[in-house]
Amino acid sequence: MGKYNVAIAGATGVVGQKMIEVLEESNIAVDNFYPMASSRSAGKKVTFRGKEYTVEELNEHSFDKDIDFALFSAGGGTSKKFAPIAAKNNVVVIDNSSQWRMDDEVPLVVPEVNPKDALKTKGIIANPNCSTIQAMVVLKPLHDAYKIKRVIYSTYQAVAGSGIKGIKDLEEGVKGGKNEFYPVQIAYNCLPHIDDFTENGYTKEELKMVNETHKILGDYDIKVTATTVRVPVFVGHSESINLEFEKPFDVDEARELLKNAPGVIVKDDISVPEYPTVLDAAGNDEVYVGRIRRDFSVKSGMNLWCVGDNIRKGAASNTVQIAEYLIKENFFGKEN
Amino acid sequence: MGKYNVAIAGATGVVGQKMIEVLEESNIAVDNFYPMASSRSAGKKVTFRGKEYTVEELNEHSFDKDIDFALFSAGGGTSKKFAPIAAKNNVVVIDNSSQWRMDDEVPLVVPEVNPKDALKTKGIIANPNCSTIQAMVVLKPLHDAYKIKRVIYSTYQAVAGSGIKGIKDLEEGVKGGKNEFYPVQIAYNCLPHIDDFTENGYTKEELKMVNETHKILGDYDIKVTATTVRVPVFVGHSESINLEFEKPFDVDEARELLKNAPGVIVKDDISVPEYPTVLDAAGNDEVYVGRIRRDFSVKSGMNLWCVGDNIRKGAASNTVQIAEYLIKENFFGKEN
Ligand SMILES: NC(=O)c1ccc[n+]([C@@H]2O[C@H](COP(=O)([O-])OP(=O)(O)OC[C@H]3O[C@@H](n4cnc5c(N)ncnc54)[C@H](OP(=O)(O)O)[C@@H]3O)[C@@H](O)[C@H]2O)c1
Ligand SMILES: NC(=O)c1ccc[n+]([C@@H]2O[C@H](COP(=O)([O-])OP(=O)(O)OC[C@H]3O[C@@H](n4cnc5c(N)ncnc54)[C@H](OP(=O)(O)O)[C@@H]3O)[C@@H](O)[C@H]2O)c1
Repeated sequence: MGKYNVAIAGATGVVGQKMIEVLEESNIAVDNFYPMASSRSAGKKVTFRGKEYTVEELNEHSFDKDIDFALFSAGGGTSKKFAPIAAKNNVVVIDNSSQWRMDDEVPLVVPEVNPKDALKTKGIIANPNCSTIQAMVVLKPLHDAYKIKRVIYSTYQAVAGSGIKGIKDLEEGVKGGKNEFYPVQIAYNCLPHIDDFTENGYTKEELKMVNETHKILGDYDIKVTATTVRVPVFVGHSESINLEFEKPFDVDEARELLKNAPGVIVKDDISVPEYPTVLDAAGNDEVYVGRIRRDFSVKSGMNLWCVGDNIRKGAASNTVQIAEYLIKENFFGKEN
Repeated sequence: MGKYNVAIAGATGVVGQKMIEVLEESNIAVDNFYPMASSRSAGKKVTFRGKEYTVEELNEHSFDKDIDFALFSAGGGTSKKFAPIAAKNNVVVIDNSSQWRMDDEVPLVVPEVNPKDALKTKGIIANPNCSTIQAMVVLKPLHDAYKIKRVIYSTYQAVAGSGIKGIKDLEEGVKGGKNEFYPVQIAYNCLPHIDDFTENGYTKEELKMVNETHKILGDYDIKVTATTVRVPVFVGHSESINLEFEKPFDVDEARELLKNAPGVIVKDDISVPEYPTVLDAAGNDEVYVGRIRRDFSVKSGMNLWCVGDNIRKGAASNTVQIAEYLIKENFFGKEN
């Protein structure tokens, strides 16, 4: 195995810190390691595989160095500005923001679903939205088997998805404190409002789920709608997903199929009863699925419940898995 | 106006206490007031309109007295046993449990939706499930205008719906304590599990939403499916509702229609942005609706978000409103 020079842009954030942790756990051999953040955090120390590193300020010259790939998690504006600079310097950017996801030139990748798309990159690879990633891992095997006609998402998303500010609001809120980030109290409440509203009445988060589902599954005929909701949970997104298939299916067969799908753990036994919650998913890279049952209200319909760690599989782990895939495919030309 | 003798069975519970409060606020003139509970609470004092009353044990002879109506909220088993005894003694029972709801002889009533059904009672009137009630108030005007073909419910239900035990689990849970009632930690988590599981994979709570929607709207052709989820919210249920109509509709017209519907408050302006949450609904009898938007994934589809106080409109207030309707219609023959 070759050794890789790796940068992490946004290394001090919720996702960035998790990226360091996940990279540490991975088999990727890292030679030089460059944690980066804004000037606010420059000079701070982070530890990676037992060694201390100093956080650098991300700037125009950050990628003059010999870097193989950079994991970005520093917001859309930062990605917009710095990802092209990195790419121009032959650094492969795997970006966590929504900035490049719908760009035709940029692959949008979930390694269990469409890994090969990553190889088409011209320098930037986008990591999908956290809610979309976990849904894709579950929907892909079902789509392959029964062809999805329509998907209706209702999400239950954790505050960690809003980064450090979201976590603080919930911590303070349960103690009776005021929100600083969310426009409405998040403690003991559910907010049908994630990211900005758009003219058609949907939030950007909802439209991400619609558009990214199409792009990742490579099927623009699937009808998709979504309601995305922030709930008072720290880490781990849950989703109630209603599906309509073209083909008939058998519930037990579908459950077996999911049991054998990569990155999926089925926890679904009403006789216990057993179903997944964020307690199962938190800290793990697999997406958990349960409550798999026929929807009797439509021909070939299904309801299911899926749960994932939004900071790991929904962000950091998916990014690292993309890097692992590129390495496996000898994308950097360092294998022999 | 006549004066009424009123019993409350389960007067010490979450719903029962709220019934006392709502009855107190109402215009119903109460002559004799009989709070009842199990032997555990017999002898306790409750205050109603400034006067103190002693809780009696509910037993076979509780309804030998001259009582006009009894509001029941003491669990299904208690209703099964004592509601028929009350009815036989000419006491009109308005029951909050699920015991009688699907009985063909028992009207299932939401006063804004199907008040006249109450007049057909043979002694027992059932109050619907809390999640169903709030959905019905919103769906009825839409059904009348555009005829609903299909409904997909995903709920976000408060712990108060599980009574005192549910509230305790969340209170203890956020302090790091263990659950006693819920099988899985409810603090900072979402449980896709309300009431028992049935053989077809649905929970009883989900089947209540399906069956009660049919009965209350009096339309068994509507296709309905549901996923019901407990969330770490104290009071107030939220619902993500996906609708498909037979007729075409205009979103602005639908919003106007809901603004004029009884018991509904529309809070829906993405330019603010403004949408309802349990903070709006808690303490009020109206159902709040927002996020009204076209679902582009189907012909004549709509998504919306509705929120209600599950202890008031979802239970106590709906019960008292049924009593008020009966009084208005001179059902007890005491008006003149
Ligand atoms: N949280 C999730 O579930 C999730 C999932 C998928 C994608 N994402 C995306 O990941 C990104 C970060 O999310 P987060 O939750 O980790 O947020 P966060 O906890 O607020 O962290 C933000 C990070 O970005 C850095 N940063 C901000 N502005 C910068 C700038 N101008 N130059 C360089 N670094 C800058 C911050 O550094 P300082 O310490 O210097 O401020 C910090 O390291 C966002 O784009 C978000 O949309 C998040
Ligand atoms: N909470 C809701 O949102 C909601 C909504 C709709 C319907 N409901 C229904 O309303 C009922 C009560 O719910 P809750 O939330 O108020 O529960 P809760 O807080 O646990 O209260 C239960 C009440 O029932 C009484 N009770 C229990 N067993 C009894 C018995 N054998 N004889 C007489 N009284 C007895 C209790 O009296 P003691 O003090 O003596 O134990 C107490 O007053 C349930 O049937 C529930 O399904 C609840």
